[in-house]
Amino acid sequence: MAKKQVPVILITNDDSIHAPGLHNLVAAVKDLGKVVVVAPEKPQSGMGHAITIGQPLRLHSVNLMDGVEAFSCSGTPVDCVKLAVDKVLHKKPDICLSGINHGANHSINVIYSGTMSAALEASIENIPSIGFSLLDFSMEADFSGAQHYARLLVKQILGKKIDKHLCLNVNIPAIPKELIKGFKVCKQAYAKYDEDFVARKDPHGKKYYWLTGEFVNFDKAKDTDVWALKNNYVSVVPVQFDLTNYALKSKLEKFIR
Amino acid sequence: MAKKQVPVILITNDDSIHAPGLHNLVAAVKDLGKVVVVAPEKPQSGMGHAITIGQPLRLHSVNLMDGVEAFSCSGTPVDCVKLAVDKVLHKKPDICLSGINHGANHSINVIYSGTMSAALEASIENIPSIGFSLLDFSMEADFSGAQHYARLLVKQILGKKIDKHLCLNVNIPAIPKELIKGFKVCKQAYAKYDEDFVARKDPHGKKYYWLTGEFVNFDKAKDTDVWALKNNYVSVVPVQFDLTNYALKSKLEKFIR
Repeated sequence: MAKKQVPVILITNDDSIHAPGLHNLVAAVKDLGKVVVVAPEKPQSGMGHAITIGQPLRLHSVNLMDGVEAFSCSGTPVDCVKLAVDKVLHKKPDICLSGINHGANHSINVIYSGTMSAALEASIENIPSIGFSLLDFSMEADFSGAQHYARLLVKQILGKKIDKHLCLNVNIPAIPKELIKGFKVCKQAYAKYDEDFVARKDPHGKKYYWLTGEFVNFDKAKDTDVWALKNNYVSVVPVQFDLTNYALKSKLEKFIR
Repeated sequence: MAKKQVPVILITNDDSIHAPGLHNLVAAVKDLGKVVVVAPEKPQSGMGHAITIGQPLRLHSVNLMDGVEAFSCSGTPVDCVKLAVDKVLHKKPDICLSGINHGANHSINVIYSGTMSAALEASIENIPSIGFSLLDFSMEADFSGAQHYARLLVKQILGKKIDKHLCLNVNIPAIPKELIKGFKVCKQAYAKYDEDFVARKDPHGKKYYWLTGEFVNFDKAKDTDVWALKNNYVSVVPVQFDLTNYALKSKLEKFIR
């Protein structure tokens, strides 16, 4: 009988190789396969699907955890996935995990999130992927609930042929593990940030602006990720890279000549 | 009778305020409304939906063209849109245009493109938006066909209530204007880049990597943007920021517990 292949699990994030969220994710799934980490050397929150074109990338071997091959990368989360496949693994991993992000990536955050862009990049390459985010920005956050559900989900997904472009956006409420009610498959809520830039003057009298914003949820539906999280579920939104608005496509044909 | 309001047209891009493509777009639509430009001070290609969180933003008034208010911004294309609405216009414009990009943004490029991310950001804010891209990377590209079709489309869209989140990804083939067959409303082709990082050694003997990749179209359908462009049409893909994969959502409910 042929020896059973150990699945290769690629792990990345956007909070950098030093983030507790990454270490917690590695620890949670370490024994489910051969874990290889390629993560940004510096925080890359809000980098979206940025890639590095104008300058070269560096890769450095890092001592992260026993039995885990790990590298820091000078680029974005999406660069990490591309470089990992081409120059570290030299093949596609069986699954790509991203996170655990320090802070929410539900609703519209999926668009800005480096964590989710890394996962989406993997799915473009036919690598099943999951991005995990905990609703707690703090570096001292309690990851025990997130770890438990991340491990449970990876076990349920790994090795199953659900969809060749499978990409899941998973958010975990920041509450004690015992209070979490389980998974809820959801859609992305229509929510956004009401921007309010703070204008200041530097010591030379010149203006500069800090981006701030208040999160507003416009979506009252009960099958959204925002609803699920408010009701103590782990939200699971399947996401895709085909941005075509099919409903609008047929309508537009009447308008544009 | 009340005086008819002049529509406000916000223009941005990702190739920077100095790019010929931006100047050509401004010139093409200048007389259709009050044009205000807020564009990145440096090239931001491949920045995707990145936003600037860790540092403040600067805004500088620029003398771009007679009768046009213009500012350069130190941030990303998405930052430009946010800052323009909050601190330059102090209200939402009637339309947001992005481009004309030097180079294609069809198919999967929509994900990496700063040009399209700026347009998508506007649509999140209920501002109808169009991103324009010419299939020619050169700074000396001939924009006459692109200008003609950009103006035609803006005239057809401006003031019409088609969809509150209308966002169009428009690509123009790099051929003489007379050879362009008109608009084709399309879906995003499933195409991607086969990455092949070029590894080099710096003068100190340390490795670095340049991202390169070959574009591969896997989509043989005739209603895609790649097909339309190959057949000398201007491709128009309506895009959306709801990334939920609805088909997969129902399927997943059986897998995840």
